Amino acid sequence: MSASLSPRPHLPAARPAFARWLGTTNDVTQTFLSAAGVPGLISMAGGLPAPELYPAGELAALARQVVADHPAETLGYGPVAGLPDLRDAIARRFATAHLRLGRENVLVTSGGMQGLDLVGKVLVERGGLIAGQAPTYLGALDAWRPREPTFRNLDLEAQDFDAHAALSGACFAYAVPNFSNPTGRLVGMSVRQALVDAAHETGTWLVEDDPYGQLHYDAEPLPRMIELSARDWDGPGYGGPVVYMGTLSKELAPGLRVGWVVAAPEMIAALTAAKQGSDMCTSGITQRIALEALEGGLVDRAQPAIVRLYRERRDALCAALEEHLAQWFTWEAPVGGMFVWAVARDAGLDTDRLLPLAMEAGVCIAPSSVFDPMGQDRRAMRLNFTLNPPERLVEGVRRLASAVRRAGLRA
Amino acid sequence: MSASLSPRPHLPAARPAFARWLGTTNDVTQTFLSAAGVPGLISMAGGLPAPELYPAGELAALARQVVADHPAETLGYGPVAGLPDLRDAIARRFATAHLRLGRENVLVTSGGMQGLDLVGKVLVERGGLIAGQAPTYLGALDAWRPREPTFRNLDLEAQDFDAHAALSGACFAYAVPNFSNPTGRLVGMSVRQALVDAAHETGTWLVEDDPYGQLHYDAEPLPRMIELSARDWDGPGYGGPVVYMGTLSKELAPGLRVGWVVAAPEMIAALTAAKQGSDMCTSGITQRIALEALEGGLVDRAQPAIVRLYRERRDALCAALEEHLAQWFTWEAPVGGMFVWAVARDAGLDTDRLLPLAMEAGVCIAPSSVFDPMGQDRRAMRLNFTLNPPERLVEGVRRLASAVRRAGLRA
Repeated sequence: MSASLSPRPHLPAARPAFARWLGTTNDVTQTFLSAAGVPGLISMAGGLPAPELYPAGELAALARQVVADHPAETLGYGPVAGLPDLRDAIARRFATAHLRLGRENVLVTSGGMQGLDLVGKVLVERGGLIAGQAPTYLGALDAWRPREPTFRNLDLEAQDFDAHAALSGACFAYAVPNFSNPTGRLVGMSVRQALVDAAHETGTWLVEDDPYGQLHYDAEPLPRMIELSARDWDGPGYGGPVVYMGTLSKELAPGLRVGWVVAAPEMIAALTAAKQGSDMCTSGITQRIALEALEGGLVDRAQPAIVRLYRERRDALCAALEEHLAQWFTWEAPVGGMFVWAVARDAGLDTDRLLPLAMEAGVCIAPSSVFDPMGQDRRAMRLNFTLNPPERLVEGVRRLASAVRRAGLRA
Repeated sequence: MSASLSPRPHLPAARPAFARWLGTTNDVTQTFLSAAGVPGLISMAGGLPAPELYPAGELAALARQVVADHPAETLGYGPVAGLPDLRDAIARRFATAHLRLGRENVLVTSGGMQGLDLVGKVLVERGGLIAGQAPTYLGALDAWRPREPTFRNLDLEAQDFDAHAALSGACFAYAVPNFSNPTGRLVGMSVRQALVDAAHETGTWLVEDDPYGQLHYDAEPLPRMIELSARDWDGPGYGGPVVYMGTLSKELAPGLRVGWVVAAPEMIAALTAAKQGSDMCTSGITQRIALEALEGGLVDRAQPAIVRLYRERRDALCAALEEHLAQWFTWEAPVGGMFVWAVARDAGLDTDRLLPLAMEAGVCIAPSSVFDPMGQDRRAMRLNFTLNPPERLVEGVRRLASAVRRAGLRA
């Protein structure tokens, strides 16, 4: 044992290898997040809200108030599963006549992403099978990578989609039924019911990820899958297979990093055990702001303006696409959410190759490969319409069209 | 595919099993956190700060100010690795003449616990070997459970401790050199240097977990292991094997959930990839509060009062132990940190069996089994002295003595 402090030459020694799963990651999300800050670049890549919608004044006042009024709760360690009052408020918010919820059905998470990480931790052994709506939210793929899962791609729009076969044998199934990420599609009633029936029949946990549920522009939302499941559930409180996830990131402000999981108590207990070793608890400050924003009506008051602004931006993007990109891409105008999914008419148009040309032209898009667990789908791109005002969206699409032309695909 | 909405009987189906590691968890941390809220119970179990030390007024004012002044940064998604200004401030705070740090050496984490979770994710394949100071912080054991590691226990106080052998072949080594958790011991210079030398020689990553470094009551702190490592490191910026972790939880307020990792850029990049899929980013609100508290001097101004109060409480606890428990236990007064580690004189005194009797008597302690990766050490207990004022500590020790008597170990 040496106590010497004299400098000695650095002895390079082989470092133990990083875990294998790191070799499968990409930094797409980091790129998207930082693209939003590059001057002049029009970012249509990430799923970022319009910052002008954040009720900054109200939230600043709430931030002061919650710390001043509840110093022990906001500044100390809190219960791992979340502040009891916030869990109760979330239970009340999602309860219906069939869906009977108590605090034991609710876990507060550090943003929606943490719910995905925790589900992977408690349900997936290394190499386990995840049955996921395809294409899939790339953040979910990121969250599960450390478990090195295998994927079964579920094409929920296929005419012959067989939900029972799709769910059988999986650790869990995953879907974003409201304005799916990345496609923006609304999963219809019959497929929702089929997934729920299959979850009841097979026992497979069904993760319903719903960050965009309140962002509906043309019609009232369809029933949640957890609500459909509750109609078939007999117990005194909900104990069925649907694991419902939500967040305040799209309805209020991502910077709060407050989300939730609503599920059977046994699932909440397992997720809570996993959260204990992940970040101990979510900040009491942001939890208490979330509670006041939910209970005081700030979240509900904010919604109409969000819907109005995003509907206008969706329409602007779709009109610009029609004008500048219809020769090369097809899309459906989404009835909600944050994204348009544009599919190339020509199978030879590779959106991975388009991305650097688009960046050169001053616009950032999300290529389809990052939403495919196998990384193979190169034919589509996801375009966000919530972050930028209409004139920027139009300019972004113009730049994109020039990039497509440079890619050698003249109309 | 069925579109029927009519109620049907619940069909119980076997659920896929939860991941194996959940079978090895315990809810000790949850119990400790909630014990702090049980009326009348004196909790000496957790590692909770004295809530009266939280500068609630200043933090309430900062909370309002940061949201009002920086709405986009506090309310939006931030960079995965943390706010650039906060990373810079942390780099400046820990840099020395030898330890050259830039932003690329710093990751902001959601509390100290997240650093441990991320290290497990990026360094441990399932069943990988962790060389950990024994006994070990139970939160670290929790954080690594999902990777199902194996453990090599390092007895840093053994006369024949061989650091090179201890680190060889491990995914990483783990130690809390300042006022170790749970023992409260200060790891001396020669062992620090031996661990660092072994890390340089073997290449093994050496995780230096330092939540208590500023809680020193009797002498100036010893050099950090990352500083010792930097003295041997030749590069333009730090790129050595020590992975240093800190937090504001003990120096300011746990409710912020802001911690940091200072390490080689390649390690920061790997941890950042893991954080992206864990919680996307830490709240901009709490990060910006942390930045203002560090840069504006609030953290440094708070320290003398913390040290004064905790020193008084340590002395009160040790005096009470001397008076009421010396027949049954031995301990060393710690020179820092939050805990006294009391070891039973009689190998037959089982602190797992003592715990329920202590709870009945109105006091909660942390039994040694929870700090042993094998769960076998039953002979000691960890007593916290920071949460309770002296008179409560004295009463707690009295209750503990009555529980020991009831356990059948009369003096």
